[in-house]
Amino acid sequence: MPELYTQDVNGCMADTIGDGGLTTDALSGARAVAWDVWHAMRDDIAEGGFPAVSIASQVDDLVAIQDVAENLMAHCDTVAVLGVGGSSLGAEALCAVALTPPVDVRFLNNPDPDTLARFRASVDLSRTGMIMVSKSGGTAETLTLAMTLMPDLMTQRGSDAVADYAVAITEPGGNPIQRLAARWNVPVIDHPTDIGGRYAVLSAVGLLPAALAGIDIASVRAGAAEALEANLSGEDIDAVPAALGAAVSLALLQSQGAKMSVLMPYADALAPFVRWHRQLWAESIGKNGHGTTPIDALGSVDQHSQLQLYLDGPDDKMFTIITQPLAGRGDLVPPDLAAHAGIEFLAGHTTGDLLGAEQDATIDSLCAHGRPVRRIDVARIDPTALGALMVHFMLETVTACFMLGVDPFDQPAVDDGKERARALLMETK
Amino acid sequence: MPELYTQDVNGCMADTIGDGGLTTDALSGARAVAWDVWHAMRDDIAEGGFPAVSIASQVDDLVAIQDVAENLMAHCDTVAVLGVGGSSLGAEALCAVALTPPVDVRFLNNPDPDTLARFRASVDLSRTGMIMVSKSGGTAETLTLAMTLMPDLMTQRGSDAVADYAVAITEPGGNPIQRLAARWNVPVIDHPTDIGGRYAVLSAVGLLPAALAGIDIASVRAGAAEALEANLSGEDIDAVPAALGAAVSLALLQSQGAKMSVLMPYADALAPFVRWHRQLWAESIGKNGHGTTPIDALGSVDQHSQLQLYLDGPDDKMFTIITQPLAGRGDLVPPDLAAHAGIEFLAGHTTGDLLGAEQDATIDSLCAHGRPVRRIDVARIDPTALGALMVHFMLETVTACFMLGVDPFDQPAVDDGKERARALLMETK
Repeated sequence: MPELYTQDVNGCMADTIGDGGLTTDALSGARAVAWDVWHAMRDDIAEGGFPAVSIASQVDDLVAIQDVAENLMAHCDTVAVLGVGGSSLGAEALCAVALTPPVDVRFLNNPDPDTLARFRASVDLSRTGMIMVSKSGGTAETLTLAMTLMPDLMTQRGSDAVADYAVAITEPGGNPIQRLAARWNVPVIDHPTDIGGRYAVLSAVGLLPAALAGIDIASVRAGAAEALEANLSGEDIDAVPAALGAAVSLALLQSQGAKMSVLMPYADALAPFVRWHRQLWAESIGKNGHGTTPIDALGSVDQHSQLQLYLDGPDDKMFTIITQPLAGRGDLVPPDLAAHAGIEFLAGHTTGDLLGAEQDATIDSLCAHGRPVRRIDVARIDPTALGALMVHFMLETVTACFMLGVDPFDQPAVDDGKERARALLMETK
Repeated sequence: MPELYTQDVNGCMADTIGDGGLTTDALSGARAVAWDVWHAMRDDIAEGGFPAVSIASQVDDLVAIQDVAENLMAHCDTVAVLGVGGSSLGAEALCAVALTPPVDVRFLNNPDPDTLARFRASVDLSRTGMIMVSKSGGTAETLTLAMTLMPDLMTQRGSDAVADYAVAITEPGGNPIQRLAARWNVPVIDHPTDIGGRYAVLSAVGLLPAALAGIDIASVRAGAAEALEANLSGEDIDAVPAALGAAVSLALLQSQGAKMSVLMPYADALAPFVRWHRQLWAESIGKNGHGTTPIDALGSVDQHSQLQLYLDGPDDKMFTIITQPLAGRGDLVPPDLAAHAGIEFLAGHTTGDLLGAEQDATIDSLCAHGRPVRRIDVARIDPTALGALMVHFMLETVTACFMLGVDPFDQPAVDDGKERARALLMETK
């Protein structure tokens, strides 16, 4: 069986790209530190630690999640997920690979009056459901969206039926979402207490919306489990892609000044995945002055937007290109049209041939300009592969954080902004 | 009349934020250079130079653009814009502020087989139109999309009617898009020869799709003209926001190591605007090792994704927050629900109150952490304001490029990738 994904870091090495790359010496220190961190973490995971990834092998909860999804599907054409950050980005990434979603899953995460007006104008409220997600149950945006939308839905649908079109996902215990759910008779699914929001994609937080979009959620878990096993079984760091990726990333920061890390898949369906990763990396590693800045990009589009800067601007970035096999896929360019237009190189090729050539060309071009580039090849873009990529990047992120001595699981600085907003609202009451 | 926008750079100064900010001395050199550049450019613009912004005062072409739009609207429920980079991002930014678009305007810019399959599955091809945009007429992605989609549309609609649902925008003279348009009997609108793709939003490239979305395109031009006039009439640099913005940005790079520039509006409708700006800045300034890296963000969502990194990660970024008046706007949080939930601070406030408090709180929080932040206040988010912001950022970008001695209008490095992709396709024929 071909592996779900492979990683190639040769394009980050001086042997391949010249002075912009890492020497074996420059990488060796980071490799040793990463291996130590990984070694300890691997033992922990083997005993069920790091539940965000250990959950990959769980199957007994999937039927219950699917049942909730089926009930919502039976009553709703549209389901809005109210949640922000970790409560929405992972679910959005999973939903994006759906081919023909049975339910139109929308993500509302901003209390923007214009967005809400557009949302109301674009749906049939009597066929609209809602998933309210907040681990703490106290997220102001989510609560505000819930309190302004739910009363109208209940008017449209009747409050007796509410269990058929609304559900909350939050931690057990008393919290604002729990109290609202109790008042409205909305069922509650437990948010795992031991999994932080931005690591929660493999729980119901990611899987319930995904199931509504028609994603095979068992495949997501299976892909995640396969990637976890592949990383756990590696006997040295070269056989553990997540640990090697963390080592290369930090070595490039420390020896080459790669302060930014660009993640650029060649698949539109992975654009939300990159935004999920952007939070995961930024919020986990950006502490005490440490960390690199994640940048989301998308091929081939950003060849026409960002590649000029990437190739010829400051040499301060590491690039990760996620590729997929594309040759022969998609619609054929009619040869007579290409000949008529005078663009023979496209004649007889497919859309996939072009996108495939572009992903290889961009990697070659970055290397030729001495820019460090890691290549991750995915066998196909589907729920299984997405589960695998998510586990890879969760493991890589946590490894990198421990290497730098920062806590991958907290986010202390953002509370300051929340307190200030709350104070401003109290003042203007 | 209140101004369309105002800029406040006090949050970038050491007097306000401490050591992370600019001293008056550190800014004075950049101010002088920016003023020299601006002075020369202002004279040039006054004589009709820099047509990308001079076009703001043109009105005689708007009727023709609107007529083309009306004809498409009469025949199409969906119109796909085929274009990439400068051929799509500006139009997408304009369409995003539409409240009730009469036509569903879609943007196809990637030859991704899965995207095309999803597109075909989601539209009625017999009511679908197409705008093909490429300045050079030779963009491989746009041509491939056109050659794979147009034959099916012609089958559905009949080739006789093609002038009612398809139009091309490209430079005059022989080029592949021109040859295809001639073969298909598709009308052609001239892409201005003296306006580069990424600066073309105020021409038909941006305005035709915008008109289809129901945007008042005369307002876009009027807002652009007002911002141009406001910048041209400033008698010193403090009265020229675009020149001052460029000076602050480069002074922060040079004296504080602000290698990244985060643009973060508090309005969902401006998310595509930020991606438009991301190309404009990156592709114009990222040359010869120069430039800063633009980062798109969105409030309040990215408070839950990126703010931890912004506040407590490396101090290597400048922040620009675009705010709007939000107090009192949007739906009211029912006080009894807020009381029941135990979140009194939201009781009786609106969604707009919350988002408004958050934009102010984030600015305060960044300042309190010593991070340089520029504030741009927009009177309202509408087509007029968008025209104004676009002119501001075009002027600022060009000023910054000339200050660094790079050509704002070319993008030489990306040709390398295009050549490599073409060679790969030739090899596999």
